[in-house]
Amino acid sequence: MRVAILAHEMFPGRAKTALGVLRYADYEAVGVLDRDNAGRRVSDFVPDVQDAPIYESMADLAAADVDALLIGIAPIGGGFDESWRDDVRTALEYGCDVISGLHYFLEDDAEFARLAAEHDCELRDVRKPPADLTVSDGVAGEVDAEIVLTVGTDCSVGKMTTTMELARAARDAGHDAVVIPTGQTGIMIEGWGNPIDRVVSDFTAGAVEEMILEKGDDHDYLFVEGQGSIVHPAYSAVTCGILHGSMADTLVLCHNAGQEAIHGYESFSLPALETYVDLYEGLAAPVADSEVVAGAINTSGLDDEEAAREAVDEYASDLGVPATDVIRFGTDAVLEEVL
Amino acid sequence: MRVAILAHEMFPGRAKTALGVLRYADYEAVGVLDRDNAGRRVSDFVPDVQDAPIYESMADLAAADVDALLIGIAPIGGGFDESWRDDVRTALEYGCDVISGLHYFLEDDAEFARLAAEHDCELRDVRKPPADLTVSDGVAGEVDAEIVLTVGTDCSVGKMTTTMELARAARDAGHDAVVIPTGQTGIMIEGWGNPIDRVVSDFTAGAVEEMILEKGDDHDYLFVEGQGSIVHPAYSAVTCGILHGSMADTLVLCHNAGQEAIHGYESFSLPALETYVDLYEGLAAPVADSEVVAGAINTSGLDDEEAAREAVDEYASDLGVPATDVIRFGTDAVLEEVL
Repeated sequence: MRVAILAHEMFPGRAKTALGVLRYADYEAVGVLDRDNAGRRVSDFVPDVQDAPIYESMADLAAADVDALLIGIAPIGGGFDESWRDDVRTALEYGCDVISGLHYFLEDDAEFARLAAEHDCELRDVRKPPADLTVSDGVAGEVDAEIVLTVGTDCSVGKMTTTMELARAARDAGHDAVVIPTGQTGIMIEGWGNPIDRVVSDFTAGAVEEMILEKGDDHDYLFVEGQGSIVHPAYSAVTCGILHGSMADTLVLCHNAGQEAIHGYESFSLPALETYVDLYEGLAAPVADSEVVAGAINTSGLDDEEAAREAVDEYASDLGVPATDVIRFGTDAVLEEVL
Repeated sequence: MRVAILAHEMFPGRAKTALGVLRYADYEAVGVLDRDNAGRRVSDFVPDVQDAPIYESMADLAAADVDALLIGIAPIGGGFDESWRDDVRTALEYGCDVISGLHYFLEDDAEFARLAAEHDCELRDVRKPPADLTVSDGVAGEVDAEIVLTVGTDCSVGKMTTTMELARAARDAGHDAVVIPTGQTGIMIEGWGNPIDRVVSDFTAGAVEEMILEKGDDHDYLFVEGQGSIVHPAYSAVTCGILHGSMADTLVLCHNAGQEAIHGYESFSLPALETYVDLYEGLAAPVADSEVVAGAINTSGLDDEEAAREAVDEYASDLGVPATDVIRFGTDAVLEEVL
C-alpha cells in the first residue's frame, strides 16, 4: 500500500506515529506532508527509517498513485486540527482512504463522510474500538505462545519501539513472533489491533485478552505493546488492564535516560527503578507470574556514545537484568532473556 | 420520590442494587416487584432495611402513586431481560420514569423511547457516562476535604455498603461528609455520580477526579465508593484508575469472611491480606500517600455471633489496623481511624 503521511509542523520530533510507520510499517511512503519542511526529505532529519520526500500539501501529490493518507501526528487531546481539512478533503477527492488514530473520529465528520461515500473511499478510525468487546475471562496465560509485554516508567519511553524491535529480532532469529498492537501507532503499523485506551474501562483487560486468544496458539511469541505506566496519575488504569489482561510471562521495563518526573505531570517524581520492578511483578503475581527480565532505555537525548553506554550499564545494574537501547545498540543484549 | 423496585427472581440474595436502595436511598419504596415472592414483604427476608410489600408485576401498582420504576437487579453482562418488558412498558404508560443501571441502555430501546416520549417520562440510564469526561490532571489531592476510599479483596465484598455506613456515621458524629458514587447502586442512591466502569479507559482516573473537584472544597470528608480489586483478572483497571484518580488520604480494605478465591474466577486465589495492603499502598505511593487505616469484613455468611467476632478480630490482626463488620457490629471500631 502506498501512503502519504500527514505530519504538519511536528515532523520529526513530535510525530511519533509518522516515525513509527516510517520505521516499521510495510507501507510504501510516497511522501510526508509538513508545510514547515516542504522540499526536504525524511532522511535530512532521521537517517535510519524509510526515506520519502516532504511536501507542502496533499495537492502536491496529485500525480502520485497514493492509496491512503495517514494522519501521522496527534495533538494533545487527540482533536482534529482544521488546518488539515484541505489535505483530507483533497485525499478523498483523489480516491484515497484516510487512516486516523485521533480521538476525533473522521467518519463522524459530515463533510468527510459525504466525500468518502462519493469517491468510494474508506475512513479508517483506528482508535474506534470494536463493538463486541467484553470482560476478561482470565485465560490469556493458557495460550501456547510465550507472552512478552513492554511496560514503562512513563508514557513515551519506547514501549512501542521496543516491542517492534524485539519482535523483528525474534523473527530474524528464526522464531514465529507477532506483535499485539494496543495503541494507534501499533495498529497503523500492523493493520489490526484494539485501541486499549479507548475501550470501556471494564473491558480493558478483556480487549487485550481477546487479541491474545486470537493469535496465541498460532505463534511462538506474542510481543504485546504496552501503554502508559502503572504509577501514572492519569493513565495507570490502561496499564493495569494490559498487565492483567495479557498475563505476560516476561516483562521488559522501558525508560527514558535521565527522566526524573512524569512528563506533563512534573510534580510527580518517578519512583526508584526497583520500585517499578516490585510494583509490576507484585501486581501481576496474583494473576500471572510475570517477571521483569530485561530493560530498554532510550538514550537518544545523550549525544555522547560513551555516556549512552554508561546509562545503559547503570540501568541494567539498577534493574538487576540485562538492558539495551534498542535503537542505538540493538537487541542482542536482551533478546535471549525474552526468548 | 416514590419508587417501585424491580427484582424478579433475585430478591434478596442477588439483588444488590435493590437492597442498597432500600437500605440507603431517600426514596420511599412503594413496592418491590418479584414474581417469585409476591404477597410477602421485604421484612420477611431482610429485617434492617426499609420495608415494602412485594408484588407480582407493575400492573399491581396501578392504583399507587409511583414516580419511578427502578431496575434493582443486574444479570451477569448487564443485559435487559425480556421478561421485564411488560413491567417497564406498564410503568411508562402510568407516567413513571424508569431508572436503570444496566449496560443495556433503555433510551436506545425503540419501544421504551417512544412510550417515554408519549407519556412525558424520563428514561434514566445511570450507567451512561457524561460526554465531557477527560484525562486526570492529578490534582484530586489538592481539595480541602479528607478523601476516604474503600478498596477490596474482590468485587462484591462490601465496598459500597462500607462507604455508605461510614459516611452516615461521620454525619451522625457531626461532620460534613458526602459520598462520591462510582457505580450504579451508589449513583441510584445518591442521585448523581459517574459510572466509572463504563467510561473510556483513558478517562478512568479523570472521571473520579472530576467528581472530587466538584465536591472537595465544600465538605470535610469525601467517602469514595471503590470498585473491583487491584488483583482482579478482569476489573483491576477500574480499581487502579479510582485509586490514582481519587488520590485518597485513607483506605479501608473490604473483604468477605472466609473467601479464598476470586468470585467467578476460582482458579485465582486471593493473595494474603498483607499483600493487598502492600499493593494498594505501594501502588498509590508515587501518586498519593494513601494508607490502609481500617478494615471492613462481611461476616453475613457466619450465623454464629462469636465466630463473626473472631473473624473480625483475626482480620484486624492480619491487617494490623482496627476492623469491623459495618452491618453487624457498626462502625464505631473504625470510624475514628478514618476521621
